[in-house]
Amino acid sequence: MSIDARLTELGIELPEAPLPLAVYVPAVVEGNLVFISGQLPTVNGELRATGKVGEGNGLVAPADAKDYARTAALNGLAVIKSAIGNLDRITRIVKVTGFVACVPDFTAMGAVMNGASELLGDVFGDIGTHARSSIGVPVLPMDSPVEVEMIVAFK
Amino acid sequence: MSIDARLTELGIELPEAPLPLAVYVPAVVEGNLVFISGQLPTVNGELRATGKVGEGNGLVAPADAKDYARTAALNGLAVIKSAIGNLDRITRIVKVTGFVACVPDFTAMGAVMNGASELLGDVFGDIGTHARSSIGVPVLPMDSPVEVEMIVAFK
Amino acid sequence: MSIDARLTELGIELPEAPLPLAVYVPAVVEGNLVFISGQLPTVNGELRATGKVGEGNGLVAPADAKDYARTAALNGLAVIKSAIGNLDRITRIVKVTGFVACVPDFTAMGAVMNGASELLGDVFGDIGTHARSSIGVPVLPMDSPVEVEMIVAFK
Repeated sequence: MSIDARLTELGIELPEAPLPLAVYVPAVVEGNLVFISGQLPTVNGELRATGKVGEGNGLVAPADAKDYARTAALNGLAVIKSAIGNLDRITRIVKVTGFVACVPDFTAMGAVMNGASELLGDVFGDIGTHARSSIGVPVLPMDSPVEVEMIVAFK
Repeated sequence: MSIDARLTELGIELPEAPLPLAVYVPAVVEGNLVFISGQLPTVNGELRATGKVGEGNGLVAPADAKDYARTAALNGLAVIKSAIGNLDRITRIVKVTGFVACVPDFTAMGAVMNGASELLGDVFGDIGTHARSSIGVPVLPMDSPVEVEMIVAFK
Repeated sequence: MSIDARLTELGIELPEAPLPLAVYVPAVVEGNLVFISGQLPTVNGELRATGKVGEGNGLVAPADAKDYARTAALNGLAVIKSAIGNLDRITRIVKVTGFVACVPDFTAMGAVMNGASELLGDVFGDIGTHARSSIGVPVLPMDSPVEVEMIVAFK
């Protein structure tokens, strides 16, 4: 099954990739690797939420943050498709790095990042399993709760 | 001398690599590179310590944190051995990135990360010298004081 | 035009690359890629400034931080030149990762990192456009306000 068909089967619609910016670009292809810029959980160019992840009033709930990590990863796939034309060319999701903007007593950034990892597993199966680092930070661009970057291999 | 013999000479016992997880894996081999997941200073699956690095009561002492960075790097070597079968295949430790969970007035994360770098130099000699970034963060998964990731080349 | 000539045209003087350190090195060449260590905005070995980026008294002004990001990237180019001998060998700036030490309500780390990205665009043109991640952190080594790492491809 093609990845596009798999996305349809999962009910996932790939967003439009963002346009190249002036001073940097969404993705660079080098050899058989694609390096993507840090992706935020935007839909139609707007962040789905802002703020810090944690338990309590005024914070982004961890379950919501997991969904935002999924959105950021989906934006990453859109960027990769734009760079290499076809997601079927991907041979491996190599590395995922996730930054979670959170309060200092929040320690479950791994569970947040599972939103990205599970999406990649659902879509790509075995070749979607990846090395991963999850990092807590105080703040991300535009006050995004999460930022996800990836390195993928393709043929 | 083989790396295993060198480890024995140094009195270093390589831990068991963690088992692959559901949604991500400890290491991905792509071409002649191994990318590993962020490693924590666990022994037999338990973190050696939790908390933030700094000077003062209730904080993880920098000298202890340096030793935890060494443990995290050692776990990374176990993961790499599991991925490529034999540490003698390593041709270069390419890049090490270290995240240190610390209080905002702690600025010696480089000294903490020397625990990882010195281990790699002790074990691998010239090919153990690597590019490195050391970053201060407010919190890491499971409240680990350090997290270390690596890219290595092998033949 | 050679990159050295372009630097002269831009009035940019490339600094001396730092000497290799004991336990890690400024850059590692692996295949056709150069991975560099996290670069700080030092001039002649001294940080241009210390502190956290933000708006307000006692903070590093964002416009200043942008200039420090440029200095860090320039140090990165010096390191790369030292590693491969000649910046004309660069075929692509692949990935730039920028860490900005900032207060938690500062969200414009992208604008800070433009100091690095614009330098790379000015010097390298199209091949200077890169994938990028910008991350807010509480503190960096030696209390540096910014840290910039890069992966570049060369021939």
